[in-house]
Amino acid sequence: MALNEGTRARLKTVSVATITTALFKRGLRNQYIQDVRPLNPDAGPMVGEAYTLRYIPAREDLNPISVFKDRGHPQRKAIEECPPGAVMVIDSRKDARAASAGSILVARLMQRGCAGIVTDGGFRDSPEIARLGIPAYHQRPAAPTNLTRHQAIDINGPVGCGDAPVFPGDVVVGDAEGVVVIPAHLADEIAVEAVEMTAFEDFVAEEVMKGRSILGLYPATDPQAERDFAAWRKAKGR
Amino acid sequence: MALNEGTRARLKTVSVATITTALFKRGLRNQYIQDVRPLNPDAGPMVGEAYTLRYIPAREDLNPISVFKDRGHPQRKAIEECPPGAVMVIDSRKDARAASAGSILVARLMQRGCAGIVTDGGFRDSPEIARLGIPAYHQRPAAPTNLTRHQAIDINGPVGCGDAPVFPGDVVVGDAEGVVVIPAHLADEIAVEAVEMTAFEDFVAEEVMKGRSILGLYPATDPQAERDFAAWRKAKGR
Amino acid sequence: MALNEGTRARLKTVSVATITTALFKRGLRNQYIQDVRPLNPDAGPMVGEAYTLRYIPAREDLNPISVFKDRGHPQRKAIEECPPGAVMVIDSRKDARAASAGSILVARLMQRGCAGIVTDGGFRDSPEIARLGIPAYHQRPAAPTNLTRHQAIDINGPVGCGDAPVFPGDVVVGDAEGVVVIPAHLADEIAVEAVEMTAFEDFVAEEVMKGRSILGLYPATDPQAERDFAAWRKAKGR
Amino acid sequence: MALNEGTRARLKTVSVATITTALFKRGLRNQYIQDVRPLNPDAGPMVGEAYTLRYIPAREDLNPISVFKDRGHPQRKAIEECPPGAVMVIDSRKDARAASAGSILVARLMQRGCAGIVTDGGFRDSPEIARLGIPAYHQRPAAPTNLTRHQAIDINGPVGCGDAPVFPGDVVVGDAEGVVVIPAHLADEIAVEAVEMTAFEDFVAEEVMKGRSILGLYPATDPQAERDFAAWRKAKGR
Amino acid sequence: MALNEGTRARLKTVSVATITTALFKRGLRNQYIQDVRPLNPDAGPMVGEAYTLRYIPAREDLNPISVFKDRGHPQRKAIEECPPGAVMVIDSRKDARAASAGSILVARLMQRGCAGIVTDGGFRDSPEIARLGIPAYHQRPAAPTNLTRHQAIDINGPVGCGDAPVFPGDVVVGDAEGVVVIPAHLADEIAVEAVEMTAFEDFVAEEVMKGRSILGLYPATDPQAERDFAAWRKAKGR
Amino acid sequence: MALNEGTRARLKTVSVATITTALFKRGLRNQYIQDVRPLNPDAGPMVGEAYTLRYIPAREDLNPISVFKDRGHPQRKAIEECPPGAVMVIDSRKDARAASAGSILVARLMQRGCAGIVTDGGFRDSPEIARLGIPAYHQRPAAPTNLTRHQAIDINGPVGCGDAPVFPGDVVVGDAEGVVVIPAHLADEIAVEAVEMTAFEDFVAEEVMKGRSILGLYPATDPQAERDFAAWRKAKGR
Repeated sequence: MALNEGTRARLKTVSVATITTALFKRGLRNQYIQDVRPLNPDAGPMVGEAYTLRYIPAREDLNPISVFKDRGHPQRKAIEECPPGAVMVIDSRKDARAASAGSILVARLMQRGCAGIVTDGGFRDSPEIARLGIPAYHQRPAAPTNLTRHQAIDINGPVGCGDAPVFPGDVVVGDAEGVVVIPAHLADEIAVEAVEMTAFEDFVAEEVMKGRSILGLYPATDPQAERDFAAWRKAKGR
Repeated sequence: MALNEGTRARLKTVSVATITTALFKRGLRNQYIQDVRPLNPDAGPMVGEAYTLRYIPAREDLNPISVFKDRGHPQRKAIEECPPGAVMVIDSRKDARAASAGSILVARLMQRGCAGIVTDGGFRDSPEIARLGIPAYHQRPAAPTNLTRHQAIDINGPVGCGDAPVFPGDVVVGDAEGVVVIPAHLADEIAVEAVEMTAFEDFVAEEVMKGRSILGLYPATDPQAERDFAAWRKAKGR
Repeated sequence: MALNEGTRARLKTVSVATITTALFKRGLRNQYIQDVRPLNPDAGPMVGEAYTLRYIPAREDLNPISVFKDRGHPQRKAIEECPPGAVMVIDSRKDARAASAGSILVARLMQRGCAGIVTDGGFRDSPEIARLGIPAYHQRPAAPTNLTRHQAIDINGPVGCGDAPVFPGDVVVGDAEGVVVIPAHLADEIAVEAVEMTAFEDFVAEEVMKGRSILGLYPATDPQAERDFAAWRKAKGR
Repeated sequence: MALNEGTRARLKTVSVATITTALFKRGLRNQYIQDVRPLNPDAGPMVGEAYTLRYIPAREDLNPISVFKDRGHPQRKAIEECPPGAVMVIDSRKDARAASAGSILVARLMQRGCAGIVTDGGFRDSPEIARLGIPAYHQRPAAPTNLTRHQAIDINGPVGCGDAPVFPGDVVVGDAEGVVVIPAHLADEIAVEAVEMTAFEDFVAEEVMKGRSILGLYPATDPQAERDFAAWRKAKGR
Repeated sequence: MALNEGTRARLKTVSVATITTALFKRGLRNQYIQDVRPLNPDAGPMVGEAYTLRYIPAREDLNPISVFKDRGHPQRKAIEECPPGAVMVIDSRKDARAASAGSILVARLMQRGCAGIVTDGGFRDSPEIARLGIPAYHQRPAAPTNLTRHQAIDINGPVGCGDAPVFPGDVVVGDAEGVVVIPAHLADEIAVEAVEMTAFEDFVAEEVMKGRSILGLYPATDPQAERDFAAWRKAKGR
Repeated sequence: MALNEGTRARLKTVSVATITTALFKRGLRNQYIQDVRPLNPDAGPMVGEAYTLRYIPAREDLNPISVFKDRGHPQRKAIEECPPGAVMVIDSRKDARAASAGSILVARLMQRGCAGIVTDGGFRDSPEIARLGIPAYHQRPAAPTNLTRHQAIDINGPVGCGDAPVFPGDVVVGDAEGVVVIPAHLADEIAVEAVEMTAFEDFVAEEVMKGRSILGLYPATDPQAERDFAAWRKAKGR
């Protein structure tokens, strides 16, 4: 199921926090990827379908430096095959003692038109990655090469990342706060709903900054709040 | 016991580190709130009396999204009732998997004249909160709505926050480094002592930057150091 | 074994990540100091021989504030005796609940010409340290005085720091990402090798930014990649 | 709402695991108290209404050894006032570095007819508690007196214990595996349902030990399994 | 590659500790499954080829209680298909907040002739499992049904378990201490070597209990120790 | 300062919990070794002077299996030199991923008349150690040889163990609950005080088991309790 372009555009205008609330309303409480942060918070919103890579703990005899001479090595293959527009999501078992990837691979991913990269471990060359234009999220910097702790084993299967379930094709959204995973079949409706919620939150934020109480306003249990919101939407054209 | 305005003013001129030393001298070793950091380190010093909110783990049937329609919901009530000049301290059991609050509530708190907000969990809308002028401290960003993990249960009772004991009315001080909790009855004397300590530390820092050894100077076991400090104070009018 | 100045200069031009790979090739997987970060990422590269300080948990009766009146207190002595050009490495047992040191001591270390300071705990006065010109690395800010949790016990013996083994005289290198410890006897050869690796990585990074695939290029299994690199080196004079 | 004696009796015949499944079917996923274990697994099933005690981090000046001379000290008061048949649940913030209680208090609780005691911290005198007849659950032994880290602050309010929400009057059930908290209003129906589930599980366990496959049997999607279960119930009188 | 029956027999006579040393000599440092313990230490040695099951975090909409009605559900399928003589190894991401399996499934596995079961999470019905004759290893008891946190996703692929890499067909050995994973191609030689090492360790243990120093004996750097060992072997027929 | 034999005898009759209270009264809150447990709770009380061994993280090139051929290897030397009657305390940085020692070394220590062994890491051959008569305490079983993670570096210097400070000659006491470290200069007075406290606690325990309230009894704020205790002592000859 390809990501609808309208949905992609909508998701770029809403926050990860708003999306988590829309998911909460549907009984989904674990879609936020825990304990990852953007290397470059200004890289702009990240929206794309999940393309996954899974690591297991490295067995020393299988992970000498020479493995990268194999063009079929899953890490390198994944970097070259992740579809443009997609977000690479790496299951590193929340282990940031060695890198999930470094700046050269992330740069290649960016050049290939991918939408971003997320690991629940760490990246090496993190200062360089922070200067690239592509959104990237990790737990903390991790200089050692991935072979030190991680063996790339699977491409594009279901994985866990930061305690969230991630299925290939799920829609992954990141902002300056963090990353959320929207189940593929919900992406369109969540996007529409989140745009609506964002309009309301923007209205409320303006009212609060003018000094209005949140009681009756947020949520809008006071009919006056509903009327004011309707007027605001009209005035703003939203 | 209201916070003395002279004490408030003095505490705005000293560091959290200096205050922890003054508390250490009195046998208090656990008043620093562990593992929280400022969302906006430039928001200026935070000083105010503690007004607390306590969360327990959320039970799903008691925490649908509709609970916020109740104007008496403790989280919303706390935001509207926290006194101007006070610091809201939230006991989130050090659990940052869901938000303790978001930008709209923090903005309202700011508009109401509160001095700051601290949680040992995380805030959602953290990029927006970082742009508000109010000092805010948390462990890490947490996009999911608080209902996902937290149920607000108590207002203004004694709590733990980041392994520190916090009683309503204690004086909470934050700077670009972190947050410390001064027992209410000690606030005045700690403030005076910390101002004195700060003068000495500023003198020492200047001397060290001129190349002077710390031996005999810090602490001032050498009588010359005492004389130099006296001269410095006179010259500086401190 | 004194640190060769050519080696020091070379190590200032390479990344910690690159060095970890050179160490990995020699079977050394644990030389990266885990979970520390620079207080001032712009302070420039840090290179120097390790001079260590070890803390044990503080016993209250041995650690009143008055201990610093003793000029022979190991923490103060270490600050005054750490050789110019050396990096002070503090084993704080990964405990950041109290400070390993504060801004005055770090300023003194800087004035004495030391190359940097690393703790696997935390520093107090961290905003001030971040403004000093000396590279400093820690886990997180820790306002409470070291006496609260730590007793300085040993100077310049072998220690652990962030799960890495550190022997006095090992060569400690830090950049904006983190810190690595090179065994003394390997420093010269690692420096030379890392400079070579860096040239290749810079070449690859440029190629990737031009749109070239990593397959055959990184590593250079395609003879064309080897030829292109040779040409690049010639053109760049590297 | 008093605990129905039929419900109490039923709950003594079912496992904590079975109850968690019944709660899961109702959307309750967090009622199992995480990471506690029985000091005496043979002490028999524990069933009773929750009577809670809450600790906050100890402030040193408020917690000298002399506080226990106060008969109104919340810890001692709680031990004397916990109703017979109730289970004392202590919120120790999952901190087992100091005791939640010791053998004398637990013995007193037992003598008073209470049904059990649970802490998400640790008990001191744990070998003695293990020899008492009362069910007791903790994280791990903790010899230091509670004053070292804990200040008893609240009696019988809502608390968190091992990441589970606990409201006074909830029904707390423990077996040799662990402890689960049943919301008060669900206790009767859960008890009935769990008895039914237990009958089926016992039937299945017998069949499996005879060599039968779980497919079609567990759950009973094969009509033959349903028929066999009906026959088994009749034969067993359950 | 089927497990050689001589190898299986040999591995039943040696300890997990001895095997880890044999692996260490070959540069393999991460084959011990960290932080798991036997539910029944008396169930005897466990030896078998690894048959794996992988869990990802549960997405609520995909994991209602009704999923088990599907005979193809990977958890149930794995239990029915794990070959006799094999050890089921479950990758539960070290998350023991919900069960990896319960007593009925473990009993079925036992009845089917499997050699044991290991999870880096927890089992439910742990007291019942402890009474079954099959070796079972977990982190700690976990009463909640697996659906609460885990979704079974993959059968018999490479996984991580307790920070160890596990490939299908690796030889898994457990004793009263813990569990180790021997790469399949090394099983035969490790078994032979471990039997030799065990003979020597048994000899040394006897000598030490007679009062002999370990210096020169362990390892046998003193030629007399070698001679004594040779005599001991002859006398014991080992 | 040699351990007084009367003190040793007294300490064998009191619990670790009681000793921690006597230390708490003197302002010492961190002398309990956190998170260690006896391998054989029935091995009897452990009392002896601390003889320490310190590990740092293992550097691979310095820790091949052949290092044990060196009779001067600190681990082996420590085992042969730990004085009879002393307790070996190993600082393993709380890392139980590899062993601190195994059954052969512990047996040798026992044969040499040492009083016990404690590590904040883990032992290998733990089932064998549990069957030896010597008290041994660790965090959890750890089969891999110590060389995998630990390098023995220092003998009999000050160390940390389980977050407690340990100086050579401190008196280490262990029971079925855990281990506490008494500063050497306090051992005699703590021993006497703990014997007194134990008499009172035994009296209280008897009274409580007869049904008496703890109020006024524990502590004995009611003069009648004091009188009853005096009578009890007389009757019991304590």
